[in-house]
Amino acid sequence: MSEKHNPADGIAFVNGAYVPLAEASIPLVDRGFVRSDATYDVVHVWNGRFFRLDDYIERFHDSMRALRMSLPFSREQIAEILTECVRRSGLRDAYVQMTCTRGIPARGSRDPRQCENRFYAFAQPFVWIANEEQRRDGLKMVISSVQRIAPEAVDTRVKNFHWLDLTMGIFEAYDNDATVPVLVDGKGHITEGPGFNIFVVQRGELATPDRGVFEGMTRRTVLEFAGELGIACAPRPVTIEELREADEVFLTSTAGGVLPVTVIDGRIYGNGKPGPVTQRLSELYWARHNEGWKSKVIDYGAQAA
Amino acid sequence: MSEKHNPADGIAFVNGAYVPLAEASIPLVDRGFVRSDATYDVVHVWNGRFFRLDDYIERFHDSMRALRMSLPFSREQIAEILTECVRRSGLRDAYVQMTCTRGIPARGSRDPRQCENRFYAFAQPFVWIANEEQRRDGLKMVISSVQRIAPEAVDTRVKNFHWLDLTMGIFEAYDNDATVPVLVDGKGHITEGPGFNIFVVQRGELATPDRGVFEGMTRRTVLEFAGELGIACAPRPVTIEELREADEVFLTSTAGGVLPVTVIDGRIYGNGKPGPVTQRLSELYWARHNEGWKSKVIDYGAQAA
Repeated sequence: MSEKHNPADGIAFVNGAYVPLAEASIPLVDRGFVRSDATYDVVHVWNGRFFRLDDYIERFHDSMRALRMSLPFSREQIAEILTECVRRSGLRDAYVQMTCTRGIPARGSRDPRQCENRFYAFAQPFVWIANEEQRRDGLKMVISSVQRIAPEAVDTRVKNFHWLDLTMGIFEAYDNDATVPVLVDGKGHITEGPGFNIFVVQRGELATPDRGVFEGMTRRTVLEFAGELGIACAPRPVTIEELREADEVFLTSTAGGVLPVTVIDGRIYGNGKPGPVTQRLSELYWARHNEGWKSKVIDYGAQAA
Repeated sequence: MSEKHNPADGIAFVNGAYVPLAEASIPLVDRGFVRSDATYDVVHVWNGRFFRLDDYIERFHDSMRALRMSLPFSREQIAEILTECVRRSGLRDAYVQMTCTRGIPARGSRDPRQCENRFYAFAQPFVWIANEEQRRDGLKMVISSVQRIAPEAVDTRVKNFHWLDLTMGIFEAYDNDATVPVLVDGKGHITEGPGFNIFVVQRGELATPDRGVFEGMTRRTVLEFAGELGIACAPRPVTIEELREADEVFLTSTAGGVLPVTVIDGRIYGNGKPGPVTQRLSELYWARHNEGWKSKVIDYGAQAA
């Protein structure tokens, strides 16, 4: 381990070795880079506990299968590698990424079947989509003019790095005094934004898009909570008009949980304060974290602070 | 320079240094990888001469501008770096890639405007889309069930690494005893395939899709040739039906020039031989290379073989 880097800045697993994240790299010719031929997933650690780790790894396996990739690691071995990244970093709150790339083609070959798939993982300090003020007062959003890549082109249920649409949406948000965009489908519906799903609340009922979106784990968690709390919620197409007329709007993301949106295209929602349904779900989300719900304690061993 | 690697296997320019391609890498956390937030271009060297180098660099600049990226290198400096990669490799026929990535975000930031954009380049042995037999007898193609990412989501005129649609199309081709797919637009038209544009010939006239495709340099070259030769050719929407009923079909790519397609979805075209228009254009393409048309001689200096 290099002495130059603080482990708390991040630890990666690359080529079978644990290295400081700042020194971790992938070959320039890995198709994971030059063809974005990769899938990934992100699980978070809160208070020294992984949240829904097995569910995330299961989904990562589903994504690999959809892209016809495979790794020489079992689910248990992947869990152990991710745990070791966190353990070595010493981080109690962490953003933990696992990635499978197609790998390096044989010389002169364009055949992806000939590649040996590669595994990269890392743990870094927990990433928030929203800063403290935004979490308290809500995010400003724009309805982007950019369309989300359609599921007929790239299966949006397979978590992937095809983000140029989302990235151009982020620029559009900043250009318009906002920080997050929601992308549309070209048929009058909203889809998702960079790293999050979106929910609208109208007359106490929830709705979230069912198509052309990645089915996020926090989205799944909120759907489960809604069931528990007796709040009606069915994934279904959500129109731009419904978003504009909603009583409350919130995002769900591994990078922050349930996050209120209080301004969309300059219009203020709920007097600029997070609404009651949003608050109730956000509080339950963090209460469940404190209870250790669906979580797995990390043994930091001798390195424990 | 490492002694382990033969320069003729490839030379890369990374972080201001020339290194063996096999040792070249990018940071795991560069948005160029983890968000495929990058643009690139590929120019080829044939017989010690760059083909249309200035045109490729100009297009690379257009792509960077569209993604709001910039580099601290002038067009001349980029040309010099690419030339130095080729010179050090000693390769007379080479595939030369230039890439600009968004770079590494500031800690905890999701703002792409804060990133310092990064430049990566490399020269490697010339890559052919088709092997010798396929170049002589023609390629087998499938009309893919996958749609190409739409221009409303990602500007297809900006060369990018969003290839999962094309990659799944390649798998579909192999599954059906072919080697290349052409992707559709979901509205009855063909678009492009992995790394190439497509042309159909019907009653001596050429057509190539005008929308939802990358405007390849070899495509541009063929359009110029058609003008010279008095062959009618307008970029316009091309239906799947027109492809099926064509007299001849060919691909254009920096990785091979003008390449005949002789089987589509199992149907044989032109008795399985490249057609006369395809052959005429292919011959002109290589004749112009031999004449040094729009090309730039590389001074290999003391390292010349």
